[in-house]
Amino acid sequence: MDLEAVKRYLEKGGETASVADGLPPRFLEPLLMSSLKVDLIQPGRILCSMKIPPRLLNAGNSLHGGATAALVDIVGSAAIPAAGHAASTTGVSVEINVSYLDAAYAHEEIEIEARALRVGKAVAVISVEFRKKKTGKIFAQGRHTKFLPTTSKM
Amino acid sequence: MDLEAVKRYLEKGGETASVADGLPPRFLEPLLMSSLKVDLIQPGRILCSMKIPPRLLNAGNSLHGGATAALVDIVGSAAIPAAGHAASTTGVSVEINVSYLDAAYAHEEIEIEARALRVGKAVAVISVEFRKKKTGKIFAQGRHTKFLPTTSKM
Amino acid sequence: MDLEAVKRYLEKGGETASVADGLPPRFLEPLLMSSLKVDLIQPGRILCSMKIPPRLLNAGNSLHGGATAALVDIVGSAAIPAAGHAASTTGVSVEINVSYLDAAYAHEEIEIEARALRVGKAVAVISVEFRKKKTGKIFAQGRHTKFLPTTSKM
Amino acid sequence: MDLEAVKRYLEKGGETASVADGLPPRFLEPLLMSSLKVDLIQPGRILCSMKIPPRLLNAGNSLHGGATAALVDIVGSAAIPAAGHAASTTGVSVEINVSYLDAAYAHEEIEIEARALRVGKAVAVISVEFRKKKTGKIFAQGRHTKFLPTTSKM
Repeated sequence: MDLEAVKRYLEKGGETASVADGLPPRFLEPLLMSSLKVDLIQPGRILCSMKIPPRLLNAGNSLHGGATAALVDIVGSAAIPAAGHAASTTGVSVEINVSYLDAAYAHEEIEIEARALRVGKAVAVISVEFRKKKTGKIFAQGRHTKFLPTTSKM
Repeated sequence: MDLEAVKRYLEKGGETASVADGLPPRFLEPLLMSSLKVDLIQPGRILCSMKIPPRLLNAGNSLHGGATAALVDIVGSAAIPAAGHAASTTGVSVEINVSYLDAAYAHEEIEIEARALRVGKAVAVISVEFRKKKTGKIFAQGRHTKFLPTTSKM
Repeated sequence: MDLEAVKRYLEKGGETASVADGLPPRFLEPLLMSSLKVDLIQPGRILCSMKIPPRLLNAGNSLHGGATAALVDIVGSAAIPAAGHAASTTGVSVEINVSYLDAAYAHEEIEIEARALRVGKAVAVISVEFRKKKTGKIFAQGRHTKFLPTTSKM
Repeated sequence: MDLEAVKRYLEKGGETASVADGLPPRFLEPLLMSSLKVDLIQPGRILCSMKIPPRLLNAGNSLHGGATAALVDIVGSAAIPAAGHAASTTGVSVEINVSYLDAAYAHEEIEIEARALRVGKAVAVISVEFRKKKTGKIFAQGRHTKFLPTTSKM
């Protein structure tokens, strides 16, 4: 691919700008969450399931790595109040990481499990694991670190 | 927040399921990329700019951490062919990480710079930095590791 | 601390240079491993234990974060042949990350568990968890990504 | 390698236990730092150099990945007081990550640059880059996140 082709690829979103511009504010979460079901919720642990919707695929027709990373953020954050943290917010993201182990395809049933490794006064760390429902095989694993502000600034 | 409230939060996407379900396949990339402009593209380096669109905000009205992570994936991947890698694909994601340093708000002009740290025969590592255009201040920094398959499987 | 004090801190190793210089080549591994015991080894899983030796402490008298990270490297690598990978080497490190959740102190008994998340033809990802033996509480969690070369170069 | 061979490898440190046990407490830092020289120190930025000593090599005779990770910890921490943070400590490690891009060999001259990306009231993030002096080529890049306690607990 030459440099011009890379530029065209990155700006191809312009073609769908009219659709994207018509979407409501804060649409990323609904886009990711409208297929999400909560199967189990316990102190410090959340188990969700999702049938991978075509809108979250990449060019290779598997779950987009950006969608996986955003789900680490969203499901990981929800584990903080689930761990009993009393704050009115779920905190501020400090770090997110994800390892991709395998591809997951359209309409596959997957499980997302968030587990609080630590929910302290100021810092929370959540592990988020993605598994294929049929085989139980882990296909991605991430961690989400958040700062839990009290009154002071980060 | 009690456990029931966490469940309601995670399943709130269901309310917008009708909008989300009507979207075309592979919609995550257009959602993120329709505001992206390529300012400069050189071997191993891509500089983009973006005016943060309201659809990519989180509940706190700043750029969603999941959007930042997905942009590390997308802009980071584009740096691989830009570094002269001849493969027909941009490879398979192995790892993505992001550190969040500050919030960026709706309509703020930001710069995203991807820089190839290594593009070898089999492994590529790209650094992706997010800066506020007005001040040049870095508000997020990430890294994207990809495996570049030839004929053999990962 | 002023800039001069930071410089003095970073160069304080010079005081012990005579001890350090007398040590044999490749001494980092013996330094970390001479307290390590393997409790269980199964395909893709290694469970070690260690009584934290004073030589691995930091200035706060808890296990040095650098020692934890180096143990992610060492114990994580050993899980690759344990997963049945036939290569003559354990591969080349691509990425290591660690989250620190709590301090562990001198003479505390700890457990280190490495679990292969993926050992493919070319890429291996190992999760490494550090727990306090007495309580079972996780005090650090990391991941180690390696490239497994065949004949081709990374 | 069969499971018994993996166990023997991990417990080989036992052979050198007598040397290791004779070392003073908190020896990991002197082991890593006795070859470190500070070339430049400015607010929020530290530039060190090191001639790779044989004691920090791995079995492949290049700088041990665990040594690199530990240096991200040590040099990264020093950048916090260098950035003007007034606390009496350099904080508590929350996360460390490193990407390995190339090997560096015994007696090679390397440069380690720590740059404060953020030093806030409670959270600091430092980028640490490892370069070969001769060519300027980056061979490892990491990030270190620390929590800076005031009076409250993490």
